[in-house]
Amino acid sequence: MDDIAADPSHPRYASLLMRHRLEVAAKKGMLAGSAMIAHGRGEAFDYLLGERTTASAMRAARQALATLQAAKKPVLSINGNVAALACDEMLRLADALSCPVEVNIFYRTPERMEAILTHMHERKHALGLDVLVLGHAPDARIPGLKGPRAACHRDGILESDVILVPLEDGDRCQALVAMGKAVIVIDLNPLSRSAQQGTITIVDELSRALTTMLHLVETEGGVELEDGYDHMAVLEEGLNEMLDSLKQS
Amino acid sequence: MDDIAADPSHPRYASLLMRHRLEVAAKKGMLAGSAMIAHGRGEAFDYLLGERTTASAMRAARQALATLQAAKKPVLSINGNVAALACDEMLRLADALSCPVEVNIFYRTPERMEAILTHMHERKHALGLDVLVLGHAPDARIPGLKGPRAACHRDGILESDVILVPLEDGDRCQALVAMGKAVIVIDLNPLSRSAQQGTITIVDELSRALTTMLHLVETEGGVELEDGYDHMAVLEEGLNEMLDSLKQS
Repeated sequence: MDDIAADPSHPRYASLLMRHRLEVAAKKGMLAGSAMIAHGRGEAFDYLLGERTTASAMRAARQALATLQAAKKPVLSINGNVAALACDEMLRLADALSCPVEVNIFYRTPERMEAILTHMHERKHALGLDVLVLGHAPDARIPGLKGPRAACHRDGILESDVILVPLEDGDRCQALVAMGKAVIVIDLNPLSRSAQQGTITIVDELSRALTTMLHLVETEGGVELEDGYDHMAVLEEGLNEMLDSLKQS
Repeated sequence: MDDIAADPSHPRYASLLMRHRLEVAAKKGMLAGSAMIAHGRGEAFDYLLGERTTASAMRAARQALATLQAAKKPVLSINGNVAALACDEMLRLADALSCPVEVNIFYRTPERMEAILTHMHERKHALGLDVLVLGHAPDARIPGLKGPRAACHRDGILESDVILVPLEDGDRCQALVAMGKAVIVIDLNPLSRSAQQGTITIVDELSRALTTMLHLVETEGGVELEDGYDHMAVLEEGLNEMLDSLKQS
């Protein structure tokens, strides 16, 4: 797998590179036990999607970016898989938005938090970015969640008005929506609870979705909100794009 | 996860039990690095299938069983995930067919072979079954495959006329078909190379497919071959059943 991951001309390069990143992150102690299974589920949905950014995903990414740009206190939430798969893109997006990222994980242990925070700081310095990385000293709780998974920063997730939560658990997504936030989800399964409950959902592979948003920032700067954007209609469109590629196979 | 896996009334019981079995197998050294990701992909397809045995899967399972019963030298192939997820069912099916099982893995190392063989023997004795378990002393090779993954037993896979290969890699499936065998595949992705290339493919979750076959043996004994069974038509039916459940969601 290492050989293939080093050869960008291989047809499975992008997919194998992501697996490679997960393996590295697993060795660093960044991942939960369920991380690999969750990634495999994502791979299957991406396969059905044709491993491409569809028209509806592009539309959702545009609306997501415009919503983050129009926010008073945006924040980008980072869990183990997100840190493993797209740490750099998340930091670059936070830099472009001048907002913090907050490491916030479902199966929270001091060891995993430390491993992820260390990785984020290493990448931040390597990229030379001045992004605030939260998660180290939670001083608030997300209402409606039990135990360590509720812990968050007041200056980050708690007081944010718009939050980007890629690859988020359904319960946590629901709790964030219940707080009145605009919740932007990135999820390859248009039928997942997170995808359904989010305010805006980008049905796309994580690094592709973030690359789309970064490209929009670079080429257009500020992006306008689409009037009458219909979350459920865009999700439905994503599901239909998946059905269409299945029917053609 | 352990708590939920111990409660059969939980709606995710079957799925969580399978994850639990994989975790136990991983600790025993039975699994390849890609095992969890492969399982996650299967979970996603099973989710699309509605986590049920469809009419076409039932038809394929019936034809698979009839083909194994009509074989001169049937054999059941076991890899790491199969041993982890459905060791007992594979042994019981081999017992019902009076045929051997052969441990045959893609990423072959002496340690993994040993771990899987030990597990198979433990379960065989626990179930009190007199099944021949091969894999320990390969004396032949599958033509067209390179390296350790080609190793097999002459009295098992090499000379078999019908082989059951659940969760099989596409290259190996192709090599077995090229040997002129009837190759029975169990795979949740009807579009996978293994599913397409197999002689008969059961698009169903592994333990459900095996339980279906064991139930047929118990209730009907010998099962008749279906005249004019059309592999590709049955696969197409499976894909349509998946599309139908997606459309209804």
